Amino acid sequence: MRIGIMAPSCRLDEQVAERLPGLARDAFGADAPELVIHPQSFLREGHFAGPDAARADAFVALANDPTIDAIWFARGGYGACRMVDLALPRLASAAGDKAYLGYSDAGFLLAGLYAHGVGRVAHGPMPSDLKRHGGEAAVGRGLAWLMNPAPQKGGQKQAAFNLTVLSQLLGTSLQPDLSGHVLMIEEVGEYMYRIDRSLFHLTSNPGIRQIAGLMLGRCSDIPENDPDFVLTEEDVVQHWCRHAGIAYLGRANIGHDADNEVIPFGG
Amino acid sequence: MRIGIMAPSCRLDEQVAERLPGLARDAFGADAPELVIHPQSFLREGHFAGPDAARADAFVALANDPTIDAIWFARGGYGACRMVDLALPRLASAAGDKAYLGYSDAGFLLAGLYAHGVGRVAHGPMPSDLKRHGGEAAVGRGLAWLMNPAPQKGGQKQAAFNLTVLSQLLGTSLQPDLSGHVLMIEEVGEYMYRIDRSLFHLTSNPGIRQIAGLMLGRCSDIPENDPDFVLTEEDVVQHWCRHAGIAYLGRANIGHDADNEVIPFGG
Repeated sequence: MRIGIMAPSCRLDEQVAERLPGLARDAFGADAPELVIHPQSFLREGHFAGPDAARADAFVALANDPTIDAIWFARGGYGACRMVDLALPRLASAAGDKAYLGYSDAGFLLAGLYAHGVGRVAHGPMPSDLKRHGGEAAVGRGLAWLMNPAPQKGGQKQAAFNLTVLSQLLGTSLQPDLSGHVLMIEEVGEYMYRIDRSLFHLTSNPGIRQIAGLMLGRCSDIPENDPDFVLTEEDVVQHWCRHAGIAYLGRANIGHDADNEVIPFGG
Repeated sequence: MRIGIMAPSCRLDEQVAERLPGLARDAFGADAPELVIHPQSFLREGHFAGPDAARADAFVALANDPTIDAIWFARGGYGACRMVDLALPRLASAAGDKAYLGYSDAGFLLAGLYAHGVGRVAHGPMPSDLKRHGGEAAVGRGLAWLMNPAPQKGGQKQAAFNLTVLSQLLGTSLQPDLSGHVLMIEEVGEYMYRIDRSLFHLTSNPGIRQIAGLMLGRCSDIPENDPDFVLTEEDVVQHWCRHAGIAYLGRANIGHDADNEVIPFGG
């Protein structure tokens, strides 16, 4: 079992990378997967983990390598949307046999892979979660899914995204067909008026209006609105679901935190 | 000549409202229009100039009033996307005879009106620009267009939007057909990585790829990126135009400032 790691957005911290093999051994003993960290993960170019082309090349190299079983996106930040168009058209059949895991900015890749039917895709913990309090458990959950990328129990189709990332790919070729899916969203560090605006955008999209229902993950680190926005994230989700005729299905156990559950896409 | 003023987003400052009639008289003497400021403009409910229904009702009342010649959006902020769906379906034929002017968050209304072929629409100064240094000239320019809402000289179709607002309505029923248009965008108060991400979104939309070309207005008050983003707003616009096969046509004289030119939509 070999898991490839690369950074589609911002660079991976070396200290996080150094802790990963030991953590995998502690959790899985002799069954621990080999972690193949692509050197691109440590590149630095301005905001990004190396140039767009280097990030695309690293992803394509790992995805098309038949000796690699799964790809784990190292961390979020920003930049996956700059490399996804450079990478997806170059994927070969070996890419379809793999599992892919990440969240936050990696959602651009999750969306594109799922939209094009490539591999098994899940929203869930990444190596950089080791920096969080309780992050070892999150990383262990991510590894466990990558080693056994089972679909959702029960067969209900589902998908999960950071709200802003999903909003920013609506109406592009990355937008997957989510009809009949339970869609889960989470957010971090956005003003409530922006969460409200992104929800207008999401729930006004004809494709999104075909989902089975919307679930709200955690919205953390919301800056203070001036004046007070009054409405909470649950208020605004319910408002927009009512307006759009979308079923609101309650809270989801996802978010920018160590409790972030693994949500396999599809059913 | 009667110009109706209402606030689709945040409330209008009374001191701005009080200065408007004198400014109109100074600029246009006996030809000065009558300014009909709807009382809704001064409502306050949390972030907004009154409840969504009150903002929609005020807009519909002015738009459907045959004695009103034009509607001037009082100011931006946030909230137009919450009332636009409540208002557009109720517009009567009198709404089609009017001119509509605003920018920033009012772009949700400009887009919806233009998408549905209602009236003459322009992106340009609003009453709240009186708070800016040099704002009197901006407000005078806005008034001059509202009194004589001429289309663009030369017949080249054009449209203008705040980048984030346009991004947040892509893939919804508010997205107008901009094929063959010169599209101008401006931005304020957004990190460069967000400007870049919004440009990915914009230039990845199949409808937007039909424009005649993109022009870049001013991007002001960009918070400092950590790490330095390195690329400027002109770098990233050129990057995404190249990537999408869209012609980059240079700078546009629009922005969140007193120099903001009036850009009539269409041609």
